[in-house]
Amino acid sequence: MIVTLTAEAEPAAVRRALAGRGLWVRRLEAGGRVQFYVEPGSARVDAESLRGIAGVAAVAEEPTRHPRVDAQPGVVEVGGVSVGSGAPVLMAGPCSVESEAQIHEVAGHLAALGVTFLRGGAFKTRTSPYSFQGHGEPALTWLREAADASGLNVVTEVLSPERVPLLAPMTDLIQIGSRNMQNSALLEAAAAEEKPILLKRGMAATIEEWLLAGEHCLVHGAPAVVFCERGIRSFDSSTRNLLDLGAVALLARVHGLPVIVDPSHATGRRDLLLPLSRAAVAAGAAGVMVETHPDPGSALSDGSQALPLEAFAELARAVLAEGSP
Amino acid sequence: MIVTLTAEAEPAAVRRALAGRGLWVRRLEAGGRVQFYVEPGSARVDAESLRGIAGVAAVAEEPTRHPRVDAQPGVVEVGGVSVGSGAPVLMAGPCSVESEAQIHEVAGHLAALGVTFLRGGAFKTRTSPYSFQGHGEPALTWLREAADASGLNVVTEVLSPERVPLLAPMTDLIQIGSRNMQNSALLEAAAAEEKPILLKRGMAATIEEWLLAGEHCLVHGAPAVVFCERGIRSFDSSTRNLLDLGAVALLARVHGLPVIVDPSHATGRRDLLLPLSRAAVAAGAAGVMVETHPDPGSALSDGSQALPLEAFAELARAVLAEGSP
Amino acid sequence: MIVTLTAEAEPAAVRRALAGRGLWVRRLEAGGRVQFYVEPGSARVDAESLRGIAGVAAVAEEPTRHPRVDAQPGVVEVGGVSVGSGAPVLMAGPCSVESEAQIHEVAGHLAALGVTFLRGGAFKTRTSPYSFQGHGEPALTWLREAADASGLNVVTEVLSPERVPLLAPMTDLIQIGSRNMQNSALLEAAAAEEKPILLKRGMAATIEEWLLAGEHCLVHGAPAVVFCERGIRSFDSSTRNLLDLGAVALLARVHGLPVIVDPSHATGRRDLLLPLSRAAVAAGAAGVMVETHPDPGSALSDGSQALPLEAFAELARAVLAEGSP
Amino acid sequence: MIVTLTAEAEPAAVRRALAGRGLWVRRLEAGGRVQFYVEPGSARVDAESLRGIAGVAAVAEEPTRHPRVDAQPGVVEVGGVSVGSGAPVLMAGPCSVESEAQIHEVAGHLAALGVTFLRGGAFKTRTSPYSFQGHGEPALTWLREAADASGLNVVTEVLSPERVPLLAPMTDLIQIGSRNMQNSALLEAAAAEEKPILLKRGMAATIEEWLLAGEHCLVHGAPAVVFCERGIRSFDSSTRNLLDLGAVALLARVHGLPVIVDPSHATGRRDLLLPLSRAAVAAGAAGVMVETHPDPGSALSDGSQALPLEAFAELARAVLAEGSP
Repeated sequence: MIVTLTAEAEPAAVRRALAGRGLWVRRLEAGGRVQFYVEPGSARVDAESLRGIAGVAAVAEEPTRHPRVDAQPGVVEVGGVSVGSGAPVLMAGPCSVESEAQIHEVAGHLAALGVTFLRGGAFKTRTSPYSFQGHGEPALTWLREAADASGLNVVTEVLSPERVPLLAPMTDLIQIGSRNMQNSALLEAAAAEEKPILLKRGMAATIEEWLLAGEHCLVHGAPAVVFCERGIRSFDSSTRNLLDLGAVALLARVHGLPVIVDPSHATGRRDLLLPLSRAAVAAGAAGVMVETHPDPGSALSDGSQALPLEAFAELARAVLAEGSP
Repeated sequence: MIVTLTAEAEPAAVRRALAGRGLWVRRLEAGGRVQFYVEPGSARVDAESLRGIAGVAAVAEEPTRHPRVDAQPGVVEVGGVSVGSGAPVLMAGPCSVESEAQIHEVAGHLAALGVTFLRGGAFKTRTSPYSFQGHGEPALTWLREAADASGLNVVTEVLSPERVPLLAPMTDLIQIGSRNMQNSALLEAAAAEEKPILLKRGMAATIEEWLLAGEHCLVHGAPAVVFCERGIRSFDSSTRNLLDLGAVALLARVHGLPVIVDPSHATGRRDLLLPLSRAAVAAGAAGVMVETHPDPGSALSDGSQALPLEAFAELARAVLAEGSP
Repeated sequence: MIVTLTAEAEPAAVRRALAGRGLWVRRLEAGGRVQFYVEPGSARVDAESLRGIAGVAAVAEEPTRHPRVDAQPGVVEVGGVSVGSGAPVLMAGPCSVESEAQIHEVAGHLAALGVTFLRGGAFKTRTSPYSFQGHGEPALTWLREAADASGLNVVTEVLSPERVPLLAPMTDLIQIGSRNMQNSALLEAAAAEEKPILLKRGMAATIEEWLLAGEHCLVHGAPAVVFCERGIRSFDSSTRNLLDLGAVALLARVHGLPVIVDPSHATGRRDLLLPLSRAAVAAGAAGVMVETHPDPGSALSDGSQALPLEAFAELARAVLAEGSP
Repeated sequence: MIVTLTAEAEPAAVRRALAGRGLWVRRLEAGGRVQFYVEPGSARVDAESLRGIAGVAAVAEEPTRHPRVDAQPGVVEVGGVSVGSGAPVLMAGPCSVESEAQIHEVAGHLAALGVTFLRGGAFKTRTSPYSFQGHGEPALTWLREAADASGLNVVTEVLSPERVPLLAPMTDLIQIGSRNMQNSALLEAAAAEEKPILLKRGMAATIEEWLLAGEHCLVHGAPAVVFCERGIRSFDSSTRNLLDLGAVALLARVHGLPVIVDPSHATGRRDLLLPLSRAAVAAGAAGVMVETHPDPGSALSDGSQALPLEAFAELARAVLAEGSP
């Protein structure tokens, strides 16, 4: 926002009134006339409320660049589950779907713990071209059947536009991974399926870029977007990425949007998953998505960050407890 | 750690065993002999437990660079208050001490809300040389007397070695600001007073650098260090800094150290303080430090991020509730 | 690398010998036996040369994860132009191809200045779904014909796998944009065309991830990869991104790979393009790619960073001069 | 800047005119009235020139926060050497002054290569409290005498306010290290000596914060500030820090200030120093500061990044050649 003062205004008094509402401002001048530019890191306020301050001549606002995201409700129904309603949603499962037996076993365990979404990769995008790329199409079928057998929904990632028609019917929530957050061809293909999308934040995406990627999805047909924070790139290697719970609070509490937190990818450290899952819900997250595996030591990918099922059970209880008022 | 395998070992089996314990490894080879380097973002494990894995010949460890920090207990007594005990500690007060009347009024309010540390700046370091630098020595006296009148402890920042002898007797906890985390002359002068130190993390400090700064304090005489996370520098301007609750969980849950979170400086946004304060405690923080002001619009510094007293009361209740199991 | 010492070695002497070769090391111990882990930011040395140091028992190396990139020659022939030979290569043109007349006019001007590659977008990926997305297929034809008329090569970006067969025959160098550096479906489709690829670095990609993306291309059929540094994300808004010429020097001088620098996207500032283009070549870049426009004020996209043709002429002269020894 | 349009203006036309001058803008509206906020990453233009654009009613500017830095000339005389004049200045020497003999030997060699400033630490600030902290006062004397014997100036770092009076008479240029860029007590003490200051950029300091730290020095008595870029913190460990030559070009070419580049600390890699030193001068740097040592393997600190004298000789020749038009 830009606040333009009247010629007679006392700029220091107006500045105090703006600070009193939580606004950080920069002062600019044209002739003797003062204008305050409101910085992006300010608390959100209604422009109308500023027009009442003595000495304020006009308040200019920036039209939103993501009107559909702004209009999306904070609670999204996916496969009979309310995401964002206050009751934490648990999404869990292995990094990749490794066998029919494995995913059935996992699904049964998870359903008993209050999990409502089964996650698992059929197609994996990997940093190295020589790494395991997933079992592909058969894995999709195993995942869907395992979920159905245990009364769970499915969330799984799609990697290329041409595979969208294959994957979409098998999942309740189409996941777009962080490497593809700005892959517009993929966003458009996924959105055209008219199913809700789980949109992971890119590793170096600003909040505004993330919301604009969500707008892309809504413009091209997706009925709803659930945002997923999974850690951003930073300078410390003690955790693999940096979990940005400030972004979660901002989306959930200020923008009123449903956000899932993925602490597995955010930290890569099994020993931090429980406290950070609780913290995510306290910050406003609609739920968490956690990698779990019956035997992390035999996982075909990312076993180092997967939580064994018994440890996951403890996490699940803590998250559900955190959600109750 | 470096894990050296026996000549007969099956490297893939050892790698799985390591991943099964939450370790990320890089494989290196000398001749046919395999060594795994354990990456920093791994879960913490005991080296001894790895020596029992079949195929492991030796496990080399890096000697700690901060033995005194490692040996410090997780609960620190400061002015009769246990920091790190599980009961959240509330530190609050204005950015700067503005007048004797103001600080007395604030102290009285805060004491009634369960606050045990009164914060307030007497000497302020500012980015611009033209900004308000604090009321100096008189403000220190006002702060101490206000705290005493309400049965509170004092925490306040020191900016230069030569003012340490003046400030130390007036405070229960000597604060080192983030700009000075690696100012060794100041750390040494503060530590020589033999009082506990509140050590704010530098804006771009790694966890290891932060712990080493703590070691500096302990080596030079400080009886204890309380760490304070206040946001690090990142690429998004939606919040002023980026609150790193992964670091808080790591220090609190893995290193067993007392950590206070300052959401005011971490985000600069009044509308995010409550959810992030709750999240901090859920992540393992020993408490929070929050800027509050009876009338943020008249604050001499940083009013935009200060919480009005009534909103602070709500935050205090939420934080204390979050701490109860 | 991991350097294991003999039981009788004097660790301090070995450490000095390693430092003397430009290596940063971390010391680890198993029993009394010392191992040094060589940190990634060290100068590159040959492992064999370390085995001769007194007290060194073994030197373990990490097998490269990108053997094909390592084997690629430093000079790549594209459309009759040697990229990486020492003579700076100029790639220039408008952000997007706006009309047949425009691109013909620009091509003629550029050819006279020593430019050998005409750049221009037919398909544009944009942060907002409401921004101009390019003129599409007709623009590709205009671009190719304009280049041919002036004896130039073409470099242009592809955004989705299904458009690769359309675009590939029209370009000499297939550009993968920074948002798609880890879009494996796109890398594979582009590589399958068996044409050289210009691989832009992702905004938060490490050097290793960038090289691995290059490996992806070579594994799937690309005959050569030319790397393109275009600025990474950082915390200062004085420039739009942060140009990482250290990465350029590392790829060019240590890895022996051809690297092009795009100062237009790296800084977004027209007033910095000339000095940074010169600096790029001095750091080892094989050339630069610069946005230029006959009338930046009428550009359909990114006019703010486009250099007017007359200013580009000055830049071209400076870059070509910088390249001569 | 904020550009306010007239009621009759055609906003799209004004936006194009602004983009045509290299400005990135955000559009805001109050009622039907349009205002453009000019973003920080824009090319620098004169506000007056914008007032002539048809449809522009007013152009508001932000008063500078560092008037003295803005007024400082681009060429600074230090000990008879013009810094910023176009002829590259070479500052070189060991990380720490290790002995009287060493520094005399080094000084003699360097003087013969065109070096005009001898660098060397007497007091070292170190991340670990257990690392070598420098030889202190005697080292200062050795440094001064060695420089005098070879006709060199001295540049050396001061770490605490109380040592400023001891150090200042022994040096021609008082160095403030990156860890202390915002240590206002130290800046004030150093500035009070009325000698030129070499101000290293903090590891996560924005350009504006760096300039404000320079303002601090000038306000408190320093006759001149020479800025020194030494790498900022980023996410890749291939180099120790990230050399920001965009910042160098910005300070040198847009702000007209003298900037020295320290590639040794910026990259930590001996194998990148030569190309990056040349690039620094090409980007506009007034010179470079490089760590060199007769025998890096025996250095008491940072030997891994020190260049042996013979390699430094090659670098010196390349830098001096880069400077000639």
